[in-house]
Amino acid sequence: MDKIRIGIVGYGNIGKGVEKAIARNEDMELAAVFTRRDPASVKIETKTAAVKSMDDMKAMKGEVDVMILCGGSATDLPVMGPQIAADFNTIDSFDTHARIPEYFANVDQAAKAGENVSIISVGWDPGMFSLNRLYAESILVQGSTYTFWGRGVSQGHSDAIRRIEGVKNAIQYTVPIEDAVNRVRSGSEPSLTTREKHLRECYVVPEEGADLKAIEEAIKTMPNYFDEYDTTVTFITEEELKENHSQMPHGGFVIRTGETGTEGSRHVIEYSLKLDSNPEFTASVLVAYARAAYRLSKKGESGARTVFDIAPVLLSMKTPEEQRAELL
Amino acid sequence: MDKIRIGIVGYGNIGKGVEKAIARNEDMELAAVFTRRDPASVKIETKTAAVKSMDDMKAMKGEVDVMILCGGSATDLPVMGPQIAADFNTIDSFDTHARIPEYFANVDQAAKAGENVSIISVGWDPGMFSLNRLYAESILVQGSTYTFWGRGVSQGHSDAIRRIEGVKNAIQYTVPIEDAVNRVRSGSEPSLTTREKHLRECYVVPEEGADLKAIEEAIKTMPNYFDEYDTTVTFITEEELKENHSQMPHGGFVIRTGETGTEGSRHVIEYSLKLDSNPEFTASVLVAYARAAYRLSKKGESGARTVFDIAPVLLSMKTPEEQRAELL
Repeated sequence: MDKIRIGIVGYGNIGKGVEKAIARNEDMELAAVFTRRDPASVKIETKTAAVKSMDDMKAMKGEVDVMILCGGSATDLPVMGPQIAADFNTIDSFDTHARIPEYFANVDQAAKAGENVSIISVGWDPGMFSLNRLYAESILVQGSTYTFWGRGVSQGHSDAIRRIEGVKNAIQYTVPIEDAVNRVRSGSEPSLTTREKHLRECYVVPEEGADLKAIEEAIKTMPNYFDEYDTTVTFITEEELKENHSQMPHGGFVIRTGETGTEGSRHVIEYSLKLDSNPEFTASVLVAYARAAYRLSKKGESGARTVFDIAPVLLSMKTPEEQRAELL
Repeated sequence: MDKIRIGIVGYGNIGKGVEKAIARNEDMELAAVFTRRDPASVKIETKTAAVKSMDDMKAMKGEVDVMILCGGSATDLPVMGPQIAADFNTIDSFDTHARIPEYFANVDQAAKAGENVSIISVGWDPGMFSLNRLYAESILVQGSTYTFWGRGVSQGHSDAIRRIEGVKNAIQYTVPIEDAVNRVRSGSEPSLTTREKHLRECYVVPEEGADLKAIEEAIKTMPNYFDEYDTTVTFITEEELKENHSQMPHGGFVIRTGETGTEGSRHVIEYSLKLDSNPEFTASVLVAYARAAYRLSKKGESGARTVFDIAPVLLSMKTPEEQRAELL
């Protein structure tokens, strides 16, 4: 069987995770990693694959079946997404929620013109959590859906702390508040404020001689990031940060509760993830959807898609017959 | 907007649940209930719908968009499924696992000939649980999947007890063993025997003067049904049965744990349901998939499908744009 040839665009945490995920899917192989850095400076694990400059991507047309775009949503993907979709099938994890309609439209236009399939916003949120919101709401039409994240590292919040004067390094955990989760699971459909749903735990390495009180104050009052939350700030050393906070765990819950019938039968649908490595899990989802993009493209489809548009049958290495026999 | 016109075939617990679910989906309406009983003897809740004999079904061609088949898997569906698929789009909850390939093939042939779409084995298991097994396995390629059912009533096991001499009435609950669930959640991928996964709790109303010891022995040693399980038998009165055991709660968990990367990162994906009413929830799933069958049929597709073949976008009342804006 011909393997599905994957290209990785951007070799950060997610790109590295994709490389490892490809190694665990026997119907796939890594064709090349594309980087903005000097290719000679980037060492990858896969001996059979090349590291190439972004500029040499077009020359690989016909040699890569699906490009997995591992750039950031803020500035990389809005440009790269439509550009690469013109020449290749693509998968990305675009997660700037407010800009999804615009991004979808741009990628759709490029992918259709290039006769490629591009699945956007793939991962676990957006991604698996989105799917579970959709499935649950379609079944329990009258009800409420709640999403909790954590306990896990928020890269954006960690970065925001690092920009404060006197901060050398920092990491921020988003923590779901157990009492809120339990109230939701009870089916009472509570109204929860931002503060009631999540805590923010910050571990901060200060510069020598920094004003700790001022740092704590700057964090806790930071608009959009922390001011609407109960936030804890703990000062630690660089060594402690390295030793205790170098993993990237994450997870969360999507819970929908709702009612059916005429006598108020209540139901709870819950989907939860507990992840040792956020980037490796996200990468594993990306790779499964790369298989779907490849299959849809082979069938002659083109244009932008989201996880909502993808029939589950397309994700599995198993044939439809095997799926029905073993998983249905 | 034209509403999707649903026919209900068989007016038992599931059929009644479908009627209530239609009332909660504003894009649908009940066209008719079809029964093998004397239609005059069947009272339904929906004032605008008719009760008809099974024999009058064909005459309704063009007046029903999707038939939801609420018969049993043992004898009803193997005959009715292909028969009705020849004339109408259909949804059913066929759950005799070993016969799915054969049933799928028969329905597929009839539906293709009639240019209809038939989605088989819809509900929560098979159904939502199957989907979660597929999604989870496609993401975590190396790992183990576990399905636990309950605490909930097993109709088949309750019936088996009722057939024992001296038993007037009985109900059986399948109960997942918490210790097993916790071992699975820990990610240790334990090998679990049937006995280690579920308990069977039986509540039995004996005939007057029946030999209780003999009944208990007959239950606990019944092959296939109870002999491989730890089973408890509690004798109760008919009044207690009515008062404490007339609900139909159910639920369960699908848990997959597995590994990614090269350093053994572990992940837990869990999907759980806690249902007040098994038939009403199952009916709500059937109704969501009726929407999908209707849409696929409108697009000119035909043949048998399972939940694996259905893109989630087809299940929701919302437009694809609304789904992307509100749920992605």
